[in-house]
Amino acid sequence: MLVVMDAGARPEQIEAVVRHIEKMGLKAHPIPGANRTAIGITGAQRTADPEVLENFPGVKEVIRVSHGYKLVSREAKPDDTIVSVGGVDVGGRGIVVIGGPCAVESLDQTRTIAQGIKRAGGQLLRGGAYKPRTSPYSFQGLGERGLEILARVREEFDLPIITEAIDEGSLKLVVQYADCIQIGARNMQNFALLKAAGRTRTPVLLKRGMSATLEELLLSAEYVMSEGNYAVILCERGVRTFADHTRNTLDLSIVPAIKRTSHLPVLVDPSHGTGKRNKVLPMSRAAIAVGCDGVLIEVHHKPEEALSDGPQAILPEDFAQLVRECDAIGQVVGRTLQPALAAS
Amino acid sequence: MLVVMDAGARPEQIEAVVRHIEKMGLKAHPIPGANRTAIGITGAQRTADPEVLENFPGVKEVIRVSHGYKLVSREAKPDDTIVSVGGVDVGGRGIVVIGGPCAVESLDQTRTIAQGIKRAGGQLLRGGAYKPRTSPYSFQGLGERGLEILARVREEFDLPIITEAIDEGSLKLVVQYADCIQIGARNMQNFALLKAAGRTRTPVLLKRGMSATLEELLLSAEYVMSEGNYAVILCERGVRTFADHTRNTLDLSIVPAIKRTSHLPVLVDPSHGTGKRNKVLPMSRAAIAVGCDGVLIEVHHKPEEALSDGPQAILPEDFAQLVRECDAIGQVVGRTLQPALAAS
Amino acid sequence: MLVVMDAGARPEQIEAVVRHIEKMGLKAHPIPGANRTAIGITGAQRTADPEVLENFPGVKEVIRVSHGYKLVSREAKPDDTIVSVGGVDVGGRGIVVIGGPCAVESLDQTRTIAQGIKRAGGQLLRGGAYKPRTSPYSFQGLGERGLEILARVREEFDLPIITEAIDEGSLKLVVQYADCIQIGARNMQNFALLKAAGRTRTPVLLKRGMSATLEELLLSAEYVMSEGNYAVILCERGVRTFADHTRNTLDLSIVPAIKRTSHLPVLVDPSHGTGKRNKVLPMSRAAIAVGCDGVLIEVHHKPEEALSDGPQAILPEDFAQLVRECDAIGQVVGRTLQPALAAS
Amino acid sequence: MLVVMDAGARPEQIEAVVRHIEKMGLKAHPIPGANRTAIGITGAQRTADPEVLENFPGVKEVIRVSHGYKLVSREAKPDDTIVSVGGVDVGGRGIVVIGGPCAVESLDQTRTIAQGIKRAGGQLLRGGAYKPRTSPYSFQGLGERGLEILARVREEFDLPIITEAIDEGSLKLVVQYADCIQIGARNMQNFALLKAAGRTRTPVLLKRGMSATLEELLLSAEYVMSEGNYAVILCERGVRTFADHTRNTLDLSIVPAIKRTSHLPVLVDPSHGTGKRNKVLPMSRAAIAVGCDGVLIEVHHKPEEALSDGPQAILPEDFAQLVRECDAIGQVVGRTLQPALAAS
Repeated sequence: MLVVMDAGARPEQIEAVVRHIEKMGLKAHPIPGANRTAIGITGAQRTADPEVLENFPGVKEVIRVSHGYKLVSREAKPDDTIVSVGGVDVGGRGIVVIGGPCAVESLDQTRTIAQGIKRAGGQLLRGGAYKPRTSPYSFQGLGERGLEILARVREEFDLPIITEAIDEGSLKLVVQYADCIQIGARNMQNFALLKAAGRTRTPVLLKRGMSATLEELLLSAEYVMSEGNYAVILCERGVRTFADHTRNTLDLSIVPAIKRTSHLPVLVDPSHGTGKRNKVLPMSRAAIAVGCDGVLIEVHHKPEEALSDGPQAILPEDFAQLVRECDAIGQVVGRTLQPALAAS
Repeated sequence: MLVVMDAGARPEQIEAVVRHIEKMGLKAHPIPGANRTAIGITGAQRTADPEVLENFPGVKEVIRVSHGYKLVSREAKPDDTIVSVGGVDVGGRGIVVIGGPCAVESLDQTRTIAQGIKRAGGQLLRGGAYKPRTSPYSFQGLGERGLEILARVREEFDLPIITEAIDEGSLKLVVQYADCIQIGARNMQNFALLKAAGRTRTPVLLKRGMSATLEELLLSAEYVMSEGNYAVILCERGVRTFADHTRNTLDLSIVPAIKRTSHLPVLVDPSHGTGKRNKVLPMSRAAIAVGCDGVLIEVHHKPEEALSDGPQAILPEDFAQLVRECDAIGQVVGRTLQPALAAS
Repeated sequence: MLVVMDAGARPEQIEAVVRHIEKMGLKAHPIPGANRTAIGITGAQRTADPEVLENFPGVKEVIRVSHGYKLVSREAKPDDTIVSVGGVDVGGRGIVVIGGPCAVESLDQTRTIAQGIKRAGGQLLRGGAYKPRTSPYSFQGLGERGLEILARVREEFDLPIITEAIDEGSLKLVVQYADCIQIGARNMQNFALLKAAGRTRTPVLLKRGMSATLEELLLSAEYVMSEGNYAVILCERGVRTFADHTRNTLDLSIVPAIKRTSHLPVLVDPSHGTGKRNKVLPMSRAAIAVGCDGVLIEVHHKPEEALSDGPQAILPEDFAQLVRECDAIGQVVGRTLQPALAAS
Repeated sequence: MLVVMDAGARPEQIEAVVRHIEKMGLKAHPIPGANRTAIGITGAQRTADPEVLENFPGVKEVIRVSHGYKLVSREAKPDDTIVSVGGVDVGGRGIVVIGGPCAVESLDQTRTIAQGIKRAGGQLLRGGAYKPRTSPYSFQGLGERGLEILARVREEFDLPIITEAIDEGSLKLVVQYADCIQIGARNMQNFALLKAAGRTRTPVLLKRGMSATLEELLLSAEYVMSEGNYAVILCERGVRTFADHTRNTLDLSIVPAIKRTSHLPVLVDPSHGTGKRNKVLPMSRAAIAVGCDGVLIEVHHKPEEALSDGPQAILPEDFAQLVRECDAIGQVVGRTLQPALAAS
């Protein structure tokens, strides 16, 4: 924390701030400048928040310096974390291309799409059994039947599965069936769910909230890790801005920012990140070029009949091209496609 | 929905779009213009989403027209809804001023603050027993003990209580103790929690998410109502923008926008909406002036010792002034302070 | 500036940062903390920017503390500035209600509207002769003929006039005819125009840019003042966000933020700030309630025939009601309507 | 335009809207639906704006469908435009890598940097002689002396030059010295400057404004083209959002969106787009991967002494690596580096 005093702050005002800092059990470091005094604060914050000092007379502003995350930080663990999802490594030198339908609709649909994913070289299958939908009248997913379908398709194609949990009830089931729990953007600050996922030992794919800062995303990962689950994968999926040519604005610059701050692997979801089928391929290439550890792609063999998010799903044949282009871009940046599991 | 064709779209492309609309069980209404053709779509959408048409050849864009909400809509219910919170009406001609600490910290703290609220003319008490905090290392609330404190203070001062539920577990307890369930901004799209709150018969105060549109807020209210709980109060609490002079940007224009679209009452929370103590009073006045049904204010008798959000809490004596000014502004716009419950 | 070092920064890295700060002619103040060291910087920045330190090894981030503005600051001038616009005071205890058409279209139109403004108690007339329009094919204003019309109407109704200059050519003419030069949101960082306006001695109404921070707005005012023109009025007119229920999001919290930081008067424009006729009256009341020095309102007697921005213009009779309500709200906050000039 | 009526709109209200549309010289197409009626509008809008209809009784909302741009549109010109900047093609199959200092500071500085650009394979030199700076107290550029330096360095290294014009005065000089006029983000809606640039026959590099939509960017290009100058290059340079890990949020998805809508070439500026040296290289790779026609990079041989934007400038040796990586990525997407001009 840094307390910046008004240019005209009187000595007794500065004194009062210093005294209050010390009363909080912290240490005050006054820095007299040409125009004004600033006061650095060090020590571990206990309960009360030094930001209240901004209401003291003579104080211009209080600037927060330290961050609350620890376990997610590269300072705490300099080496990259690699998370194994059902035997496929996420993070490290390899890259993964994950595909699948937005929602599991039927065994047939999921099998057809999974087959396309596997043939194309995709290593993991995504698909929602529990769908958080903006409207209560939209299709909400097949629930446990969807999980059963995913598990069956995994056996057939040796594709580990990632699927979303939306509450503690669905989490319990997801853990029984899936190789990786997805926590969606709308639940990034559903702290009860984060803690519950932290108490499992299943890897967690945590999506950035629609208006989450880097620090908030890292603190949400910290929630999971502070419960003992260190297998966390972050995912950029677009943020909300004024721009209207895409559904969200995919913020690729967060990838190098995460890599600088944290040791966790990071994926990019250009399907939700743009909401437009024709932007999925170019933004996937860009995501790999910027240095992420893989992409998460919505694939549907009949997008015009999809029960959710059809406008952003690509065809299996386009997914195959996407895998090829990600591989080629990856090689330029010193990465190679992670091998898929061998058919058992 | 409206499908806008490219200027150079060929007749067979227009034809293909029309055919697909009809295949979806909807009706197509081509509107030939000077430069391009548009095609209106009517009929009830079933499962598939007409927005996939934007991937058809010759289509420039697809514009969504209809909204998914029904029960929240003023079209469905022209008259203003009045929600009774423990005997105090929210909505209608009266206005309410709700105060209390961010977090319940102790019986003493809560009693002292509640006394200030009651003396000042506040009608309802707010206070968190379950706190959704950005960091796992911050104070997370007293839990059920906090609810017990609130209930005890309610008896003493005849102040019905509003307190937040953060998951299904806490919801069950909140319903036993409180007069109104608060669903916080971070949970506005926690659909499992919304449905669970909808299955209770306790009024729900639903806060706007940090980047929620008007439509999304209304659809979240629709989630609660579609489960049978019609006692929903909306609350603006600031949205996230680039502006950095306040913690959030309080969007007061949503108040008349909600009033035009929905029959539900709407409150404003200038404490979280600005995050700055010195802006709470002016923004409260503005909120009443714009036509909301009341304000939600964080009050603490020792803000510099508060366990959370001290920088934005005001003192009980400032709350008293705030009540007086809201009353005076209210009278200009034809509203009067709702009477507080008589001490029993 | 504050340089925050990595937790694991080595002593020689800290040393290198300190040396570079001193090489820049500045003073370094190391603050060793429990986990990491921070280094405060004081002294007047010359040419090079200490922010480059964030590229030094062992540096976590560089935090900017000081602000670049001086003349606009309340630290420099504690008392409120009052700007006289053709004899009408803006700032101080009075409030002003300014009305007029978006664009001057004809003498008849301007006379009719001006008459309505005057009768209603409005003190100043606004109207554009030069219109910055998003499309080159939209009506661009009448140019100097528009200024002549404004001047003629001013004589008839004793209404000083505010009108926009969009470049140095139009500025020269505006200065000859108008009582106040408006610089629009799109030109808030047109520094050449700001400097040119600063070289005149005509008051300047400076609108906040669509994505301008408080600091940027103040620095743009500083551009005008640093050229010797101290008669600057600031104006909030809405910022751009994801919210789509209004054209822009009117950020009323900037009013108390400006009042705390600067001595300059500040107006609010709810017409552009919302873009919706039905929100102009409630947001005007809110603007006065929050403590601004007046509002700027688009008025048209036949909005459905207006050559620009008809959807947000209100009728003269609605303007009369708006003046009455602003007056009533103003009295609650200790302000009174500024008297209009007596008819000569 | 599409007018959406309330569900309960009465027949005479629908009739009144239809009549007003026809009175405006436009054609109304009522589309009766199950719940509500919509009314399509066709015909060329004249002066009045049909959006005023949203204030008519029974109208729910008015949705804008058509766009105002013509000349920039791919509908008007299906083939990609290639703009020759001093003999170097921008657009088409090649890609360009443009480098140079933020500001021209001296002949020595500019020569040293230009030499690095040329050796690395950069085809064009950028550098500002007129700098739009947020603060009036920051270095504002060398003015015409800076242009002379640029011209001299061009002769020496055969590097055509791009430099910014900030007003009509500087534009006149820029046109005499430079191969391409840059219009900066802050001037994207300085329509007077756009028109003046449109009256020259020098290519224009138009940067996206900090909160400009795709449509606004295209309409600003339309301003230039409507004056007869068709040599326009667009440039994404980051937009303003809540995200704070970079100075701006680089919106790469606008590249495929522009390519779909317009025939104009588009560049990306990752230096301003991120404001962070360590993100320039990864975001440059991503920009090429997404399909842009080149990148614009700030280069300085002594960034810690740069008079502006030092924190985001990269070293000449890093620029050389950047060129190599852009070339490699370009080949994956079927593009090759544009050849630089041969030394004369």
